[in-house]
Amino acid sequence: MPDRYVLVLAGGRGERFWPWSRPARPKQLLPLARGGRTLLAAAFERALQMVQSPDHVLVMTALDLKQEVRRECPGARVLGEPLPRNTAPAIAAACAWIPGDSALAVMPADHLIDDLPAFRRDCTRAFEAAERSPMLVTHGIPPSGPDTNFGYVRRGAKVGDRIFRVERFTEKPDAARAREYVESGEYLWNCGIFVWRKSVFLEALEAGRPALAAALRNFEFSGTEAGFEDRLRVVFPALESISVDYAVLEKAPNVLVLEASFDWDDLGSWGAWARRQPRDARGNVAFGDAVVVDCDDCVVVGEGGTAAAMGLRGMVVVHVNGATLTCPVADSESVRKVSEAVRSRGKL
Amino acid sequence: MPDRYVLVLAGGRGERFWPWSRPARPKQLLPLARGGRTLLAAAFERALQMVQSPDHVLVMTALDLKQEVRRECPGARVLGEPLPRNTAPAIAAACAWIPGDSALAVMPADHLIDDLPAFRRDCTRAFEAAERSPMLVTHGIPPSGPDTNFGYVRRGAKVGDRIFRVERFTEKPDAARAREYVESGEYLWNCGIFVWRKSVFLEALEAGRPALAAALRNFEFSGTEAGFEDRLRVVFPALESISVDYAVLEKAPNVLVLEASFDWDDLGSWGAWARRQPRDARGNVAFGDAVVVDCDDCVVVGEGGTAAAMGLRGMVVVHVNGATLTCPVADSESVRKVSEAVRSRGKL
Repeated sequence: MPDRYVLVLAGGRGERFWPWSRPARPKQLLPLARGGRTLLAAAFERALQMVQSPDHVLVMTALDLKQEVRRECPGARVLGEPLPRNTAPAIAAACAWIPGDSALAVMPADHLIDDLPAFRRDCTRAFEAAERSPMLVTHGIPPSGPDTNFGYVRRGAKVGDRIFRVERFTEKPDAARAREYVESGEYLWNCGIFVWRKSVFLEALEAGRPALAAALRNFEFSGTEAGFEDRLRVVFPALESISVDYAVLEKAPNVLVLEASFDWDDLGSWGAWARRQPRDARGNVAFGDAVVVDCDDCVVVGEGGTAAAMGLRGMVVVHVNGATLTCPVADSESVRKVSEAVRSRGKL
Repeated sequence: MPDRYVLVLAGGRGERFWPWSRPARPKQLLPLARGGRTLLAAAFERALQMVQSPDHVLVMTALDLKQEVRRECPGARVLGEPLPRNTAPAIAAACAWIPGDSALAVMPADHLIDDLPAFRRDCTRAFEAAERSPMLVTHGIPPSGPDTNFGYVRRGAKVGDRIFRVERFTEKPDAARAREYVESGEYLWNCGIFVWRKSVFLEALEAGRPALAAALRNFEFSGTEAGFEDRLRVVFPALESISVDYAVLEKAPNVLVLEASFDWDDLGSWGAWARRQPRDARGNVAFGDAVVVDCDDCVVVGEGGTAAAMGLRGMVVVHVNGATLTCPVADSESVRKVSEAVRSRGKL
């Protein structure tokens, strides 16, 4: 049996936790995981469960984040992209590091999964499925509600315990369709954790995005990280920026989905983060240097300064890094509107 | 005619503008007056209208604020109190600087008055009244609404143009009584600007608070500021902390009220301050480094960092001095609740 590899995608600039997240410290580098670890450190720990040694974990990130990423992932092979090109080019380029026809798991660096044994169990089953058949295997999360922030996977024929053919991937639905999906019991959330053999992926990429596949087919480099990055500097700028979902999975006929048994949260907002924090008797989350007077169901975060809230209901108040965000908890998915406004002033 | 003097009371630690106001920079030292001047600088300018030279303006403040106060009041006699004892002891002690039986105006340092000519006119009339009769003269503001944050003065018999005997001082009323007062047309707001001759004041203090009067009766000092402050260090700690309203005015039979023709605002809250600021089309006040996305009727202030508000209605969001305050505009009178909570953590 060839070695197994894991590719952690850590190139995102997630702004949903502005002002905590900044370009130089995006979401995966925030201490949002259990025990105050970064999400990336927790993802690396999960990755280590699946491989025989840390250097079988590849971490793709932005060049300027490499140093911090390396600190969170000791022993991993940390690869810097010269510019962001979304997930399909990143995965295809990383394949140059995979010897022979080894199987590779791909996972985002900025999601939260606490149940390590369940994750290991499921991911091992996905590796086994990918190793014994020419299939692209994804993990699907049983939806806890009609969330419109995720893509959904419709399962088809059952091919094993909690493993199904994928009938269809769907984009983020509207609220009515999301309700339909959830009520049908046939849909799972697409959480972006994939397992496949290198050859199976590259064939599917060839079918779905031939130009992209051709550009990376003979990706030759010296075998060093620096050599790899030098090649990326040449090749990446001309590549199409496209997600692996769109370039490969939505079109491929050979996709399986494993219904996950592990917990999962994409921590898409301050509100999502707060749902996992301890609350006071009035439903408030007070984190760090927070003063909460006569509030209900608020999220108040003070880092490097006091955040004080008085007389508020259902509000997020975050004072971090010398900036403040305030909005209703229900709007915290839209923080990008604020970070974009801040960026347009050149102050992000 | 003896010289006229003005005493500016600048010892307050006003916390209503927390986190902008801090113990080391209370409200009177914030740039809340027109043109970005401090309230104290504007009060000093008003005081200069009434006297023949700057050294006829006395400014009582806390010892640790003297340096900043002196910068705002060039040429004034700045006197530092070793500890706060409210207004009656401060005024009584300051009388030691008043030669003969000169008349003295007393005014707070942290109120906003923009109409300098009207102020000068009214205050001159108050001086004239105080100099020609043994009366305590106060200024009354025609109420613009049934505000419950002010004391009220009920006017009695008219003794001149816009000058009346005072029938009664009242404490801050409840909402129903405040409405009654305003509808009657017989009440004015007590704004704390007084004029009297030294002898008239000291007699009234003797009648109202004999122990306090006795303690300060023979206040002997070397004639220097340092000598005065040395004496205060000995005398002040034992004095009763009491307002001049309570110690003198509410009990004295010889009080006149001049119905003011100048504008006046005590700037008691962020909401009050915002009422004087320019607003955008949706009623928002954005001051400094403020980002306002989809908000109505909000007050967003960023100093030394970005304050961002999204999706809020009628909220105050202030990011200053490395701390953040958020509350409904309507609650901004109660900021003390927050600053007290912060102080209890030793972080004010």
